[in-house]
Amino acid sequence: MSVTRTETDSMGPVEVAADRYWGAQTERSVANFPIGTDRFRWGRPMIRALGILKKAAAQANADLGELPVEIAELIVRAADEVIDGTLDEHFPLVVFQTGSGTQSNMNANEVIANRAIEIAGGVMGSKRPVHPNDHVNRGQSSNDTFPTAMHIAIVEELQHRLLPAVARLRGTLADKAKTYEEVVKTGRTHLQDATPVTLGQEIGAWVAQIDFGAAAVQASLPGLFDLAIGGTAVGTGLNAHPRFGDRSASGIAALTGQPFRSAPDRFFALAAHDALVHASAALRTLAGGLMKMANDVRWLASGPRCGIGELLIPENEPGSSIMPGKVNPTQCEALTMVCVQVFGNDAAVAFAGTQGNFQLNVYKPVMAHNVLESIALLADACDAFEAHCARGLMPNLARIRENLEKNLMLVTALNRHIGYDKAAEIAKTAHREGLSLREAALASGYVGAEEFERWVDPEAMTRPGG
Amino acid sequence: MSVTRTETDSMGPVEVAADRYWGAQTERSVANFPIGTDRFRWGRPMIRALGILKKAAAQANADLGELPVEIAELIVRAADEVIDGTLDEHFPLVVFQTGSGTQSNMNANEVIANRAIEIAGGVMGSKRPVHPNDHVNRGQSSNDTFPTAMHIAIVEELQHRLLPAVARLRGTLADKAKTYEEVVKTGRTHLQDATPVTLGQEIGAWVAQIDFGAAAVQASLPGLFDLAIGGTAVGTGLNAHPRFGDRSASGIAALTGQPFRSAPDRFFALAAHDALVHASAALRTLAGGLMKMANDVRWLASGPRCGIGELLIPENEPGSSIMPGKVNPTQCEALTMVCVQVFGNDAAVAFAGTQGNFQLNVYKPVMAHNVLESIALLADACDAFEAHCARGLMPNLARIRENLEKNLMLVTALNRHIGYDKAAEIAKTAHREGLSLREAALASGYVGAEEFERWVDPEAMTRPGG
Amino acid sequence: MSVTRTETDSMGPVEVAADRYWGAQTERSVANFPIGTDRFRWGRPMIRALGILKKAAAQANADLGELPVEIAELIVRAADEVIDGTLDEHFPLVVFQTGSGTQSNMNANEVIANRAIEIAGGVMGSKRPVHPNDHVNRGQSSNDTFPTAMHIAIVEELQHRLLPAVARLRGTLADKAKTYEEVVKTGRTHLQDATPVTLGQEIGAWVAQIDFGAAAVQASLPGLFDLAIGGTAVGTGLNAHPRFGDRSASGIAALTGQPFRSAPDRFFALAAHDALVHASAALRTLAGGLMKMANDVRWLASGPRCGIGELLIPENEPGSSIMPGKVNPTQCEALTMVCVQVFGNDAAVAFAGTQGNFQLNVYKPVMAHNVLESIALLADACDAFEAHCARGLMPNLARIRENLEKNLMLVTALNRHIGYDKAAEIAKTAHREGLSLREAALASGYVGAEEFERWVDPEAMTRPGG
Amino acid sequence: MSVTRTETDSMGPVEVAADRYWGAQTERSVANFPIGTDRFRWGRPMIRALGILKKAAAQANADLGELPVEIAELIVRAADEVIDGTLDEHFPLVVFQTGSGTQSNMNANEVIANRAIEIAGGVMGSKRPVHPNDHVNRGQSSNDTFPTAMHIAIVEELQHRLLPAVARLRGTLADKAKTYEEVVKTGRTHLQDATPVTLGQEIGAWVAQIDFGAAAVQASLPGLFDLAIGGTAVGTGLNAHPRFGDRSASGIAALTGQPFRSAPDRFFALAAHDALVHASAALRTLAGGLMKMANDVRWLASGPRCGIGELLIPENEPGSSIMPGKVNPTQCEALTMVCVQVFGNDAAVAFAGTQGNFQLNVYKPVMAHNVLESIALLADACDAFEAHCARGLMPNLARIRENLEKNLMLVTALNRHIGYDKAAEIAKTAHREGLSLREAALASGYVGAEEFERWVDPEAMTRPGG
Repeated sequence: MSVTRTETDSMGPVEVAADRYWGAQTERSVANFPIGTDRFRWGRPMIRALGILKKAAAQANADLGELPVEIAELIVRAADEVIDGTLDEHFPLVVFQTGSGTQSNMNANEVIANRAIEIAGGVMGSKRPVHPNDHVNRGQSSNDTFPTAMHIAIVEELQHRLLPAVARLRGTLADKAKTYEEVVKTGRTHLQDATPVTLGQEIGAWVAQIDFGAAAVQASLPGLFDLAIGGTAVGTGLNAHPRFGDRSASGIAALTGQPFRSAPDRFFALAAHDALVHASAALRTLAGGLMKMANDVRWLASGPRCGIGELLIPENEPGSSIMPGKVNPTQCEALTMVCVQVFGNDAAVAFAGTQGNFQLNVYKPVMAHNVLESIALLADACDAFEAHCARGLMPNLARIRENLEKNLMLVTALNRHIGYDKAAEIAKTAHREGLSLREAALASGYVGAEEFERWVDPEAMTRPGG
Repeated sequence: MSVTRTETDSMGPVEVAADRYWGAQTERSVANFPIGTDRFRWGRPMIRALGILKKAAAQANADLGELPVEIAELIVRAADEVIDGTLDEHFPLVVFQTGSGTQSNMNANEVIANRAIEIAGGVMGSKRPVHPNDHVNRGQSSNDTFPTAMHIAIVEELQHRLLPAVARLRGTLADKAKTYEEVVKTGRTHLQDATPVTLGQEIGAWVAQIDFGAAAVQASLPGLFDLAIGGTAVGTGLNAHPRFGDRSASGIAALTGQPFRSAPDRFFALAAHDALVHASAALRTLAGGLMKMANDVRWLASGPRCGIGELLIPENEPGSSIMPGKVNPTQCEALTMVCVQVFGNDAAVAFAGTQGNFQLNVYKPVMAHNVLESIALLADACDAFEAHCARGLMPNLARIRENLEKNLMLVTALNRHIGYDKAAEIAKTAHREGLSLREAALASGYVGAEEFERWVDPEAMTRPGG
Repeated sequence: MSVTRTETDSMGPVEVAADRYWGAQTERSVANFPIGTDRFRWGRPMIRALGILKKAAAQANADLGELPVEIAELIVRAADEVIDGTLDEHFPLVVFQTGSGTQSNMNANEVIANRAIEIAGGVMGSKRPVHPNDHVNRGQSSNDTFPTAMHIAIVEELQHRLLPAVARLRGTLADKAKTYEEVVKTGRTHLQDATPVTLGQEIGAWVAQIDFGAAAVQASLPGLFDLAIGGTAVGTGLNAHPRFGDRSASGIAALTGQPFRSAPDRFFALAAHDALVHASAALRTLAGGLMKMANDVRWLASGPRCGIGELLIPENEPGSSIMPGKVNPTQCEALTMVCVQVFGNDAAVAFAGTQGNFQLNVYKPVMAHNVLESIALLADACDAFEAHCARGLMPNLARIRENLEKNLMLVTALNRHIGYDKAAEIAKTAHREGLSLREAALASGYVGAEEFERWVDPEAMTRPGG
Repeated sequence: MSVTRTETDSMGPVEVAADRYWGAQTERSVANFPIGTDRFRWGRPMIRALGILKKAAAQANADLGELPVEIAELIVRAADEVIDGTLDEHFPLVVFQTGSGTQSNMNANEVIANRAIEIAGGVMGSKRPVHPNDHVNRGQSSNDTFPTAMHIAIVEELQHRLLPAVARLRGTLADKAKTYEEVVKTGRTHLQDATPVTLGQEIGAWVAQIDFGAAAVQASLPGLFDLAIGGTAVGTGLNAHPRFGDRSASGIAALTGQPFRSAPDRFFALAAHDALVHASAALRTLAGGLMKMANDVRWLASGPRCGIGELLIPENEPGSSIMPGKVNPTQCEALTMVCVQVFGNDAAVAFAGTQGNFQLNVYKPVMAHNVLESIALLADACDAFEAHCARGLMPNLARIRENLEKNLMLVTALNRHIGYDKAAEIAKTAHREGLSLREAALASGYVGAEEFERWVDPEAMTRPGG
């Protein structure tokens, strides 16, 4: 037999398990939204963000004379526990609830109020001395608090989780590019043999692409620094002190070390979440770049004998349950699957972003969820790929040399000397008759042996003006 | 200090916690793929499906003389525990791993082998008397077992979870359509007042659309009944008895009560998963229909005073943390957020479906995951919406009548009698001068009072030829 | 100086070029919607479909006594010219207009009315003896005629254009599969060398996948055979004879030879276009399969010397403006670009499909446009690929043999004889020491020379039980 | 009988219509890629961009001593005609061709060479004195020229077409926001009546959202200013003068007035087009904002009698072919259909962006096409919407006042005075018993008449701290 206490809200009483801090509205949401309960509970980032927000709001209200200092202090103490993660089990709600996140906002209000009451020695559920709406939610509405928490959570995850992971991977690849900057190899365009590049140039292009994606993610931060707080129900700030939004945003900035500020247009901050759409698109761009890199790695490592085979990747596990000795590019596969998931998540975010009406977009939770998931997956996958693949990448120098030697597209170096048409004639002859390029060139009569050596220099062909 | 035992695979020894059944390859995967570990572990449907598959495979091998009966029996006993769910905690792997699902296939092989060894009184990790590859995976490859398990899991979830939930919602709405078949109300096109419909017709269109979506999902089943099993590594069936695929598929059919069969082209069954892409698209179609329905419900219930207000929805929770007494269409919001998520998941599935190469598509796990997630979310959301919204839908008859009376588009009934151009003149006059349609019609001189009553009959306008 | 005549509609007079058959509403649309005018005018399929619809409607109305026979005959004569394409230049409107397609419906009404008036010797613009609304649009609304025309156009394009093109490509590939059914070659999974397949099996998997896609497209037809006609403004059929919908649908069926019928639920037929969403998804599935096939072709043809090089593709044009003699897989590239476009088009269709409200979805034109574009592009690309690539595909037998001989994964055949673990040991040794599989096998002591020959038979490995 | 001349390329002779400037490779492409020929020919922006590029390249080559001045001058004269548009009919190729755009690059080379030859009095097809490859394409490859032209075309279209159109629409809306800044009206969240806002605030949020989208588009420009030119075939710059890339980019900057520069990493500039993916995402963000705005407009204008009806929109055309006098929000519909198309186009671009391999992404044409199409459609639709809808937006003041007066959510102003719970009680009573808020408040005994007047002031509620 479980022990319960009675909680109430404006619709009446509800029984809640006695060992849970949440109140009536959270309990109603548990009952009304049993959707994806195994996978879609909010995780650390959003719970922590709600704690940060409620702490900053209480302090702002106290500073502005809107809340007695002792009440604010109780709220701050309880909010600190939310921030620290010790109350995570008291946040049972899932993504698929009210589209404004009202119930998760109320979950935070209720847990903080009851924990604060407990600290104060009061009776949980009594709403005294701390009321979830009148005190914890003072000067706030779900419509401004939930998107504020979304921004806090996403910014923290980007700054502390994704961007460092991307930087680590980028650094490892940049080191590889440097290490192998003089390994001359076959370039490939249209999957066909092309003029030479160095392995350093090839890897360097991946680095440049990852840099582009990371810069796009960075560039999405300013929009996320703008917080809805202070807008309350519809953007006007009704029931909040005129300086509450700015003051709360400053508090959040201080607590997180991130340059958050109050949004210049709070109506827009409630009615649309284009900052999330924009950030999601940047994550998609980054994912696209990672996918191209991972695909290049696995194709270059293809074989080992009947593929390209120019790159060696670490052997982390048996590749096949039936083919003994097989080594597969599993880290590439995990990473590209993550990229595909990020594309799907982004499609959901962008779609949801269009569906606001009037003063509110009611797809807040699903937008926040997908952006946070994309961030976490990309971060994890970058770290795994860095540790278990990128770090161990090595050229198969013998294969690279062998491929380079038989590559007919070295003929391109002759264009400047004998013109495109004659050069084409040589390449076609070599291809048709199975000759080396040198053999065909000399046989053509257009080029002498000494000239061929001088003109067709793969290493020189990888340098500007080469 | 945790106690471990030594497990081995073709790459060497690995320490595994002594109280876990899994072996070396699972342990390597845990270490190599720490990606989304909090949310992306395989759930019940896939684990159960792997159990069903391994049981059917062992029985097929025994029947065909490929496996000693006593070994097969041990495997069956262990597989039954996998099916029942008692070994779920021994499946720690996540979606983002090898793209063929090799490690989850090996997880099943290892857990079943060790549990079978334990039943037989052997030493776990010894691979005797039951070897994970040579016995549990006999005649199999991850490349055919994992997609087979995908199909089993998806079919079971569709048949036992989603389609019944959709049917329940459909039934409730169909009842409402019947109940309100005589409530005549304003139709709306382009969001503008249009000629009348009955509420039953309006709800009936939702039912028809849900039926279309459900039929699309049903129509995707045959492709899912085709199993890859028997194809082994590349589709040829190497190392499997020639009748192993058929025999296993029959066994799976018997165990599940679903008409599974061996795929006509096993090469296609490994290299692409268009049956999943097709099923995912059907889920998307269903989601699109549910979204339209949920949007109609919330718009019809908009207000209560400054919107359309023709529908009343249940009040399940306080709607706002700041606006007292507000009631929001929260079930509609949860459902439409689920629909948006299904769209995102489908985008991931379809993208992944294009990325196969040669004999294998290595996006199997991410495809299976997204289809299973969409199924679960749609099922949960249909059930929640049915219980907490659809069942309680009621017309606001006063508002419906009031809206109908002032609707100028009843003028359309005059087309047949006075022609489009004169009818337009009447409607425009009424609109411009704020008259009722009757007033404007009589003032126009085109229609007499008695004719107006006879011609402009909203109820008749909702019937064919009306 | 251009000569004009005055046309009128319910909003007043408009000047129209004297040599154009269209009327006031078309002219207004030209002025109001200058959006994408260079690329988004309706093409043949929709114009023809509107002609078919208007002809069938006139005949149905005449049969049912709703229209004087002589008026109907005039309409039929003009509609026949619309069907034939001789009036195409009188359809200037673009996709991005009213979301119900009202203006294109009116364009058809106006052109047919004026042309009928002209045939009858009347004065264009006079609406006598044929009125665009009261006669040509008799018993109709844009809300039911436009989606009816959409279905007609799409069905005709699928049946007469896409499905035959797919069948041609499928046939050519099936012939290749037959021709090369005995060419044994390296299989590839995870891009890594795997156990052997025949080239026939490899190509056969493409055929099976294309068949799956084509079957999905076929399966989308029944939904498209259901026509909205008879629903008029909101689905009730107001102002239409009760049998008008059925009679018109029968007429359309007779004119097209396709089993069109009146939709069972006309409310659904106006309010949503899930039949298009479903068809678009099928096109996407087909595109996904074509993309996988085209990617396989270009990878197998990669090289010619530093790639896989097992397939030879026709040389249709110089590949590079700088690299002489280069041959690129250009047909693969055109086809995969088309596939990507189809994915984009499908995303637009599915999104639009969710956005209906109440009795109408007002994204009709954009949905129809994208489905028709996907059909046309896929048909064109299949034909080009068939003629310029598939037909000329040839194996590079020398390269295939060379690759097969060095493929270590033939070791898999040893599993059944010496077990997975020992087989793995052999493969790893061969890989590490650069030995052939045979050399490593004999050196291992697990296998004798005679056994090796008997057990490791690549050709046998491609057969069931091999 | 058409007159032809013989053109040649490295594959041999081809007959070309005598009145066309193009050469052998263009003619081959016409024959090999009959895909979407009615709608997918390159338009002005790409042709112009190719002209600009070829002109700048010729000048750079001449400056660097790579091309005789007189040859360069001939090329410049012909290129100027390409820029001006007088040679558009000599660009017959479509999007779906070689994925590097090689054939369109060659089309430009051939047309310019032949026109230059003609100017010089030579024989077309003779390649003397101007050779398409050796002179016009000097120091270039399709792999760097085509993406350079893509960037030029997209930047010019963004700067000269889209951004000005968005600015016009934004300006008109900002004026409306100013004009109606004191019209107090019902706010709406969750589609339900909420606390008041001013119409100026409501429109201002649209302006803020459009500003966000436009800023995102602006922020995508720097990536587009980086040009691939100078990378030639694989990024190394083989066959180009070391300073050719920088010199050409400067020339392009001078010709266009845009700050183009040579890309810092030319390997990345060929192998991926993330700058386009990023720009496409920004267009999607903008489209999402426009869609939300257009949806708000049509919902606020819904009715006229049975909807919200607070906004009046221009009546541009008869709304219905069957319902006389109906006015529909057709500009909103056209705009939202464009937005949906932009979403689809973006999905194609992002997908294509992931599919590069090694040194080249071969989805260049389809990426460029979709970005250019999205730009053009958004620009056209913004202009149409601005002219035919935004400019004529007006409030329906009577309806706004009526709605405001009956709005129960004014109760929120009481929270600060009597607490959330008592305020909820009042609102619920009013709703249940059909009372005005004032009546219910006074009846509750919590509020006196004088207090009610003072506390519940809709106008004050729209101001910070109100």
